[in-house]
Amino acid sequence: MTEPMTGTAAWVLERCDELTRHTARDDALERVYLSPEHAAANTAVAAWMRDAGLATATDAAGNLWGRRSAAGTPQQPGTRGEPALVLGSHLDTVPDAGRYDGMLGVALAIAVVHRLRGTALPFALEVAGFSDEEGARFGKALLGSCAASGQWDAAWWDQADADGVTLRDAFTAFGLDPGRVGAAARRPQDLVGYLEAHIEQGPELEALGLPLGYVTTIAGARRFVLTVTGEARHAGGTPYARRRDALVAAAHLVTRIEELAVDAGGLATVGELRVSPGAVNVIPGRAELTLDLRARTDAARDALWGRVAAAARDIARERHVSIEHAETHRAPSTTCDERMTAAVVAGIAAASPEFAGRADDVPGLWSPAGHDAMAMAAVTGVGMLFVRCRDGISHHADESVEAADVAAALDAYTAAVLALADKPVAEVAR
Amino acid sequence: MTEPMTGTAAWVLERCDELTRHTARDDALERVYLSPEHAAANTAVAAWMRDAGLATATDAAGNLWGRRSAAGTPQQPGTRGEPALVLGSHLDTVPDAGRYDGMLGVALAIAVVHRLRGTALPFALEVAGFSDEEGARFGKALLGSCAASGQWDAAWWDQADADGVTLRDAFTAFGLDPGRVGAAARRPQDLVGYLEAHIEQGPELEALGLPLGYVTTIAGARRFVLTVTGEARHAGGTPYARRRDALVAAAHLVTRIEELAVDAGGLATVGELRVSPGAVNVIPGRAELTLDLRARTDAARDALWGRVAAAARDIARERHVSIEHAETHRAPSTTCDERMTAAVVAGIAAASPEFAGRADDVPGLWSPAGHDAMAMAAVTGVGMLFVRCRDGISHHADESVEAADVAAALDAYTAAVLALADKPVAEVAR
Repeated sequence: MTEPMTGTAAWVLERCDELTRHTARDDALERVYLSPEHAAANTAVAAWMRDAGLATATDAAGNLWGRRSAAGTPQQPGTRGEPALVLGSHLDTVPDAGRYDGMLGVALAIAVVHRLRGTALPFALEVAGFSDEEGARFGKALLGSCAASGQWDAAWWDQADADGVTLRDAFTAFGLDPGRVGAAARRPQDLVGYLEAHIEQGPELEALGLPLGYVTTIAGARRFVLTVTGEARHAGGTPYARRRDALVAAAHLVTRIEELAVDAGGLATVGELRVSPGAVNVIPGRAELTLDLRARTDAARDALWGRVAAAARDIARERHVSIEHAETHRAPSTTCDERMTAAVVAGIAAASPEFAGRADDVPGLWSPAGHDAMAMAAVTGVGMLFVRCRDGISHHADESVEAADVAAALDAYTAAVLALADKPVAEVAR
Repeated sequence: MTEPMTGTAAWVLERCDELTRHTARDDALERVYLSPEHAAANTAVAAWMRDAGLATATDAAGNLWGRRSAAGTPQQPGTRGEPALVLGSHLDTVPDAGRYDGMLGVALAIAVVHRLRGTALPFALEVAGFSDEEGARFGKALLGSCAASGQWDAAWWDQADADGVTLRDAFTAFGLDPGRVGAAARRPQDLVGYLEAHIEQGPELEALGLPLGYVTTIAGARRFVLTVTGEARHAGGTPYARRRDALVAAAHLVTRIEELAVDAGGLATVGELRVSPGAVNVIPGRAELTLDLRARTDAARDALWGRVAAAARDIARERHVSIEHAETHRAPSTTCDERMTAAVVAGIAAASPEFAGRADDVPGLWSPAGHDAMAMAAVTGVGMLFVRCRDGISHHADESVEAADVAAALDAYTAAVLALADKPVAEVAR
């Protein structure tokens, strides 16, 4: 097999394949924050960055960076002076992951840099391979991009992974100094903006029959734990009039939550439900469930929560149980930056024959899933390019993209960078 | 405090209080099969039996027996010759138990023997304190009465408790010989019948405003594990049209199961539900639930299962999931013996002013909960006397009975034995 030409869609796909080597498990892809696999992936990706003409460095939070000057020469990441346009995504994965979530965006960014070799730009160009977007190891997501955007919270240091290793100790074991994490923070004045390409992780583009779209907003989730308390009693001796079955009440709530979310056009997921005491012949006295709520806007999401809370009150009253809730997470939604988004739209319109240059036809999608762009929006304007994926499948080994879609994404991504540079798209070799 | 007179309701209640000393936990009552507490309870109860004029012995399965001859002299349990009427219940408990479930029936039986001291009967009289009815330690219920009724299954020897101790090893540690368990089996020809007094563990008598009732049938439960398989996907990226959420499907099934059971007049309990992968931001791909089904007759119970299975098929089709089931337990219901039941009814009618001797008004209840009488029915006719308990609460520290109800039960129980002996009830000192 011949190695595909650098900076092509085939090269991008082969990079995604190659990164599957760096996994904690033989039978599945799993690469979490500050793991040996994380270090190995950084090493491999840094080599590809240098091939593309970037100087590379790992920052104080384990994120991998590559940088070239406006003129096009390798330049140490962290160099101050010329502000940089950052192209990035993440290199970590969930357990049992697909190979494109995150990695496709990093590989595409490096391919764009390949395509722009020899092209002077009015800004420095950087590629970021963020170290933790999924939060699979320590529960908290976006650790890498939170460090890069100066949003690190000291409260996170004591969070432990499933083996009891704290984030602090994992930093040290990886060769990082917890006391220096602030050095990873980028300053707004050093940045032109942040662009991220990512598989859609949803089926909208496939339904539209289009390979690419741009992101309007990234939904911020609210998460709750709901606790239903009834009374544990003997399954044989307790007739229905005397039952206060916490699980039946929880089941009514789960079905109602789905109805309310569908009506509201939002997404509400009960991912975990635990019953106690949990014996075959005992009526459940307690049920605890998690709720993850997302919608196109924060207002729509909050209105949906209001309806869920009202339904919980009704069910509690009807079924003689109590239902309490605690909010465990709340993130505001992120609106993509106008200038960055215009560049993404112009890139898609210029690069995709489907639109024949008509930017108005390029589909804008809201992203129910979170992305590093959410964190980076704290320090610079962000824009996102979505790439069609098969059947909307993500967080699963069956993640799949078409080579032709990746080629279109590469053209559009390159064109978007040129649009920001006020350069004609025709400069990009197809 | 003066010790109440033997063979009174106060004496019975004090015995139930006293047995709470023999517990594995300081803060709750827990006395499981073949535990040190089991041995201590047997020792205490044996002394009470001897006080009542019985000779005592522990059988090859740890059950405690006491016996007197027809003439009324102590006689070694296991003596063959005069067939015996057995009065019994169990001395083991669930974790966090109440003090009356089982123990009330044993204490009442001993009090009846006290009341009949000096009364010659046409049969020997025995009291059984069964060693395992609840199945709290090894999962399998009715171990004690299965041994006494010759229904021991060698497959049980390898069942282990939560600490990994097998039933075989627990036998040895208790001083019993596993190879001799068959010696505990009673022969039909040695038995006149079996009577058991027990708290109702349900609210029917309370609702009727009556202290006592008799049992018509003891329901045999069927138990199933139902497994719902959908697809685990990203909670953010998966719109409703693409979801195959195993938990939402399971929740629909749980609510439907309750509706079907209420319609059928049966009881269906989902005591356990487990979700996987079980993460806040992942749509559940799998849900596993247990189902415990009971009804007045086996036919009604089986018809209810048919409707549940049909509902599961409908839900699976509608929600694009699969729902499979495995039956984990099936016991036939037990019909109480006509002669034994007539004696119980006659005893209640004679002893309770509420009925003024009208046996037709005595309420007959089906027992959704299992009892030692189910096992003993394999070797002899069984009859059961139910005693009202507060709010139907059982398997809970709040189990409660009224002293007046216990007094009525003692009179009725004594009268039932006399009825079987064709003796006038008036012989019983109130």
